[in-house]
Amino acid sequence: MEFDPTAHPHRRYNPLTGEHVLVSPHRNKRPWLGQTEPPQTATLPEYDPACYLCPGNPRSGGQINEKYTSTLVFENDFPALLPPPGPVPPVSGHPLLQATPVEGGCDVLIFHPRHDLTLARMATDDIENVVNEWMRVYLKRGRQPGIKYVQIFENKGAMMGCSNPHPHGQVWSLNEVPAFPATELENLKKYGQRPQASGLVSGAPCGPGNKPCMLCEYAHHEMSLQGEEGRIVVQNEHWVALVPYWAIWPFEVLLLSHHRHIPSLDHLEAQERKSLASIISRLTIRYDNLFSTSFAYSMGIHQRPVPSQDSSILADGDEAHLHLHFNPPLVRSATVRKFLVGFEMMGEPQRDLTAEQAAARLRACSEVHYLDSSDHGS
Amino acid sequence: MEFDPTAHPHRRYNPLTGEHVLVSPHRNKRPWLGQTEPPQTATLPEYDPACYLCPGNPRSGGQINEKYTSTLVFENDFPALLPPPGPVPPVSGHPLLQATPVEGGCDVLIFHPRHDLTLARMATDDIENVVNEWMRVYLKRGRQPGIKYVQIFENKGAMMGCSNPHPHGQVWSLNEVPAFPATELENLKKYGQRPQASGLVSGAPCGPGNKPCMLCEYAHHEMSLQGEEGRIVVQNEHWVALVPYWAIWPFEVLLLSHHRHIPSLDHLEAQERKSLASIISRLTIRYDNLFSTSFAYSMGIHQRPVPSQDSSILADGDEAHLHLHFNPPLVRSATVRKFLVGFEMMGEPQRDLTAEQAAARLRACSEVHYLDSSDHGS
Ligand SMILES: [Zn+2]
Ligand SMILES: [Zn+2]
Repeated sequence: MEFDPTAHPHRRYNPLTGEHVLVSPHRNKRPWLGQTEPPQTATLPEYDPACYLCPGNPRSGGQINEKYTSTLVFENDFPALLPPPGPVPPVSGHPLLQATPVEGGCDVLIFHPRHDLTLARMATDDIENVVNEWMRVYLKRGRQPGIKYVQIFENKGAMMGCSNPHPHGQVWSLNEVPAFPATELENLKKYGQRPQASGLVSGAPCGPGNKPCMLCEYAHHEMSLQGEEGRIVVQNEHWVALVPYWAIWPFEVLLLSHHRHIPSLDHLEAQERKSLASIISRLTIRYDNLFSTSFAYSMGIHQRPVPSQDSSILADGDEAHLHLHFNPPLVRSATVRKFLVGFEMMGEPQRDLTAEQAAARLRACSEVHYLDSSDHGS
Repeated sequence: MEFDPTAHPHRRYNPLTGEHVLVSPHRNKRPWLGQTEPPQTATLPEYDPACYLCPGNPRSGGQINEKYTSTLVFENDFPALLPPPGPVPPVSGHPLLQATPVEGGCDVLIFHPRHDLTLARMATDDIENVVNEWMRVYLKRGRQPGIKYVQIFENKGAMMGCSNPHPHGQVWSLNEVPAFPATELENLKKYGQRPQASGLVSGAPCGPGNKPCMLCEYAHHEMSLQGEEGRIVVQNEHWVALVPYWAIWPFEVLLLSHHRHIPSLDHLEAQERKSLASIISRLTIRYDNLFSTSFAYSMGIHQRPVPSQDSSILADGDEAHLHLHFNPPLVRSATVRKFLVGFEMMGEPQRDLTAEQAAARLRACSEVHYLDSSDHGS
């Protein structure tokens, strides 16, 4: 029997995390007996007087939002991290009980004054404002003394526990590199240090110091495959959005540069920021179109932990390859989501739909938002 | 300022997984603005003619359940894993794209014929039947050629994506040790191999070959703390259920033996199985009482990957210390749950309530189920 990745169970390896995912494509036909989510029905107003993120409204901490017209950044009123100096936990009575102090800050980054928009419904110019704001926050927080990582993320949709549909993300900056980016950075570094593959000339861009970069090589490899076999969803001059070979979430996407090694947001040229905004727009429109719903996800930016002092000099941390993860839970429809529970919580992640099947589904989606298409409402 | 673990943010280390959790106890007072879950309202019948797990009913694959009177085990009609031989994935064209074949089997284990029961509502004798069935499945599947791990788990509650309230769990057996138990086993093994701590005489039981066992020592340490300071929820002669120092889920519990090192279910004496059933009953009743609701969770049993050939001879794998993880999502009420999203998905896990606070809350719960208490319905 010949192996068919769309029919035979197998296990794939994620070189970024060192973990595996179980793929069970033969299970795609099983009937759905699970929990369903409530459908999204509400049409949102452009301005909601009860929203703590709308311009001019009071926040839960009592402060009043300015009447911003583009993006707005403010410190979270209930931050998970507090600025230094904090008290240091005492050495515990037992080596198995280890605590270390943590400090930093939490920002909220509003994407747009309009309550009813999302990245998928925003103009590309407005998304470019968000990209520029991400860069400013990364530079500002990353230069504060003691900060070792700036984690930018967006959590979108009620099924991700996000209460407020007003388009916004968050930035948590702290004195440690958090577990997941730390693991990725370690694996990127190891990949750069491995002995050069015997005669393998991939033609991919190199990482710092002309060493191989895992993500440059991975993006290059995916770009070299024929469209219908591959995992690419959208691409442009600088960026590619693909369902990674080792994806866990049904329609998980990794968005990264393919034309050169870029460690962090502050290394982006104006044209690269513009094309990043464009590919984010195209990807999120496809997401919404997949199930004709505002697609829930968590998005996170992984990059160089903090900006380098002088980006013209190579430094430790430059092996980071700027990338965005989109982890959306929906799997079959606007109301059927994946849960990482049971075996996936106690054993290891598992999926039924293959990465290639997911990419093909997203490629088949239009780049005209379903709410803007002429079919809509007919 | 003196460090107060109930007020100051810190980061705790999990020696079982090598990962960290961010603890932000100062945030406990923030108002809840997030998504809420629908409350459980339905009263379930003892028998549901539409349930594919009730005795005598047809399953989705068409088979008819026997009229079982205690527990029932059958192969999942839509298994994620298939029995050997399966085709072997070809070596891919790129070293970053690695797939390996996976094979095995998936069983469903029904806990009780009654549709309306849960572990928290079952008699201890009936839970003992479940423990015995876990042991039988572990022995049966673990002795099949090629099987390298038997993962027993229960996924309970609609908010965990579990559609059918009929009390049941699953067992996935496969030709690889899945990622999470593999990491734990590696850390347990390393702990046993480290040079003996200088003069540290903990009085805890030892692991195989008289080497230190991380979980024996951890359980022993928790038992040595004064009740109101500690993390223990319930304990008996053989077992202790505690909120681990490094817990991620709000009311996460680790259930393990404290009196001796037990690698796997097949090593349990009759009295230990009885007292395991008893502590599971006491813990799950407290869970239900916490928010007066049928408490959702994923439970998983981690142990020796497969039974040893001869349990009287020390063998590789005996460093495993049998334990049960209970990961429940509820955090504030029957309708407010935790989501592992945003920073927790892109950075690292985070919690507000400390492990000690969670343990104190569970300790304050009664061991009489709220549906059986005289207050109920008044
Ligand atoms: Zn990453
Ligand atoms: Zn474990």
